[in-house]
Amino acid sequence: MRAVTGASFYAPVEEELAELERRLLDVGRAGHPVFRAAVAHLFQTRGKLLRPTLVFLAARFGTAADREVVLNLAESLELVHTASLVHDDVVDRAELRRNVETVNAKWNDDVALIVGDYLFAKAYALAAVLPKPEVIAIVAETVFALCDGELSEVTAARALPSEREYLDRIELKTASLYAACCQGAALLAEADAEHVAALGAFGTNLGLAFQITDDILDLTGDEEDFGKTLGRDLLEGMPTLPMIYAVAERDGSGGALASRILAPAKNEEEVRGLLAEIRDSSGPERARQRALAFHGAAVRALEQLPARAERDALRDVADFVVSRVR
Amino acid sequence: MRAVTGASFYAPVEEELAELERRLLDVGRAGHPVFRAAVAHLFQTRGKLLRPTLVFLAARFGTAADREVVLNLAESLELVHTASLVHDDVVDRAELRRNVETVNAKWNDDVALIVGDYLFAKAYALAAVLPKPEVIAIVAETVFALCDGELSEVTAARALPSEREYLDRIELKTASLYAACCQGAALLAEADAEHVAALGAFGTNLGLAFQITDDILDLTGDEEDFGKTLGRDLLEGMPTLPMIYAVAERDGSGGALASRILAPAKNEEEVRGLLAEIRDSSGPERARQRALAFHGAAVRALEQLPARAERDALRDVADFVVSRVR
Repeated sequence: MRAVTGASFYAPVEEELAELERRLLDVGRAGHPVFRAAVAHLFQTRGKLLRPTLVFLAARFGTAADREVVLNLAESLELVHTASLVHDDVVDRAELRRNVETVNAKWNDDVALIVGDYLFAKAYALAAVLPKPEVIAIVAETVFALCDGELSEVTAARALPSEREYLDRIELKTASLYAACCQGAALLAEADAEHVAALGAFGTNLGLAFQITDDILDLTGDEEDFGKTLGRDLLEGMPTLPMIYAVAERDGSGGALASRILAPAKNEEEVRGLLAEIRDSSGPERARQRALAFHGAAVRALEQLPARAERDALRDVADFVVSRVR
Repeated sequence: MRAVTGASFYAPVEEELAELERRLLDVGRAGHPVFRAAVAHLFQTRGKLLRPTLVFLAARFGTAADREVVLNLAESLELVHTASLVHDDVVDRAELRRNVETVNAKWNDDVALIVGDYLFAKAYALAAVLPKPEVIAIVAETVFALCDGELSEVTAARALPSEREYLDRIELKTASLYAACCQGAALLAEADAEHVAALGAFGTNLGLAFQITDDILDLTGDEEDFGKTLGRDLLEGMPTLPMIYAVAERDGSGGALASRILAPAKNEEEVRGLLAEIRDSSGPERARQRALAFHGAAVRALEQLPARAERDALRDVADFVVSRVR
C-alpha cells in the first residue's frame, strides 16, 4: 500500500467536485437568513469530499451516467452526512469540528437542531427526484442506519462493548453511507449487477477502515495534523476499538482500565493518563491491523471491476483512508 | 356556524383513519428498540387526526383516488407533523403535550432529537414513492416552511411582532401543513385544477384559524378541557395575536405590557397577572374575530367544490376548528 496524497484520486472527477461545491454553497439560497448563514459557515472550507468523490468515481462504471442525476445523488448524500454531523455535534456538545466552530457552538442547540432538519429535508428533496426508486430507498435506508447507530450510542449502557458490537455500530454510523455512495451511484448509472455488488462491498469495507482509523487517530494522532482535540472519545466515554483491545490486554482480571475509560466527566489529567496508557498498549496497533484487514477486503472487491483509471482512483482512496494523519 | 362535535366529520373516512392508525403504530417495527418504544408512546392515544382527515376528505374530490397512495400521503404528512412536534418540544423544553409526557421528558433531548430525525426519514421515504413529483415537492416544501417558521421563532428579537409578522410565522409553522394535506391529496387524486386550488386555499385559511384559536385557548382556555398548561406562550416569551392586540389597546404610549409579556423567566405570579390582564383586554375577542374571518375564507373556498357529503364534512372540520375548547 502506497501513501497517497489526496490530490491523485480527485483528478478524474475534479470538474464534478467543483460543480458540487458550487451547489452546496447554494443550498441556503431560498431559506431563512440564519439557515443561509449556517450553510455558508458549514461549507466555507472544502472538506475532504470523500463521499461525493466515491459517487462520481463509482458512477463511471455504469453505462448511463447522466451527469445531472449523479450530481443530485452526490449532493443528497453529502447533505445527509452534513445534517447528521450537525445533529451529532448537538448530542456530543462538541464545539469544534476540524478546527471550525460547530453550529451549536456558533449559534446554539436550537438553531443547530433546525438547521439539521433543514439539511435533511434538502437531501430528501434531491433524492426524491432521482429516477430510480431503489436508489431513493438506499438514501432513506442510510438515514435509518445513521439514526439506529446514533440511538445505540446515546442509549448504550456504560459498559465496554464487544468487538462485534463496536463493528455493528460503526457499520450503521459510518460504513452505510460509504456503501450508499458507491452502490447508489453504480445503480443510477446502470452498472452490471456484479459491479454494483462489488462497489457496495468496497464502500462498506472502506467505511469500516475509515472509522477505525479515525478512532485510532483520536487517541494517537498529532493534534495539529488531526485538526481535532485528541481524546474526544475518552472525554465522551465512547469506547472505540483501540480501547477495547487495550482493555483486553491489560484488564485480564480486574477491569480497572475499562472502568476508567467508561467513567463520566473525566478531568484533563485523567484523559492524559488514559491516552498514555492506551498508546502504550497493543490496542492501537491491533486496531490498525483490523483497519488494514478491511482495507484489504475493499481492495479485493475492486478486483471485480474492469481495469481503468477510476478503479485506480478508488484504490488510491482506500490507501489514503488508512494512511491519512487527519 | 354550528358547534361541531368531532365525530361528524370523521364518519366518511373512518375506515381510512383506522388503517392509518394501524400503520402509525407500526412505524417503529424494524427500528431500534428505543425508537419502537417512542413510536408506541407517541401514538398510544388517538389524537384529533385532523390532518389525515383532511387528506382523506380532499382526495374524494378527485377521480383517481388510489387508496394506498392516499394513505401513504396521509401517513407521510402525519409523520412530518409528529417529527416537528418532537423537535419543537426539545426547543421549547416542554414536558407535556396534551397531558402526555414529551419524548424529551420521558427519555432525554438526545433521544428526542434522533427520534425526530427518524420520523422525518420515515415521512420522506413514504413521500418519495408517491406517483406525482409535484406532490413529493409539496411535502418537501412543507418541511422547509416548518423549519423557516421554527427558525424565525428561535432567532426572533425580543420584540413584539406586528400582526403581519405573526401571521407570516403561523402560516409557515401551521397553515403550510394544512394546505399540503388538502392540496396534495387533491393533486394525487387528479382533481380539477380549480378544485385543487380551492382545497389549497381552504387548507391555508383553516390552518390560520386553527393556530389563532390555539393561541387564544393558551390564554383563556379551561386547563382541564385544553389538556395543556395555560400560559405556555407567556412562559416562553412567545408573543401571539391576542397579546399583540392586548398591547395595542393598553400600551398606547408606554409599552409596559409589551415588556412584561416579552420578559424572560417569568414566575408563576407574573404569568397569572398577565393572563388576567390579557383576558380582561379586548385582545382575545379581537383575535377571535380574526380567526372567524379566516374561517369564513375557508368556508367560501369550499363553495368552489361540488356539493357532496365530503364538502359538508370539510365545513364541519372548519366549524370544529374555531369552536373547539381543546
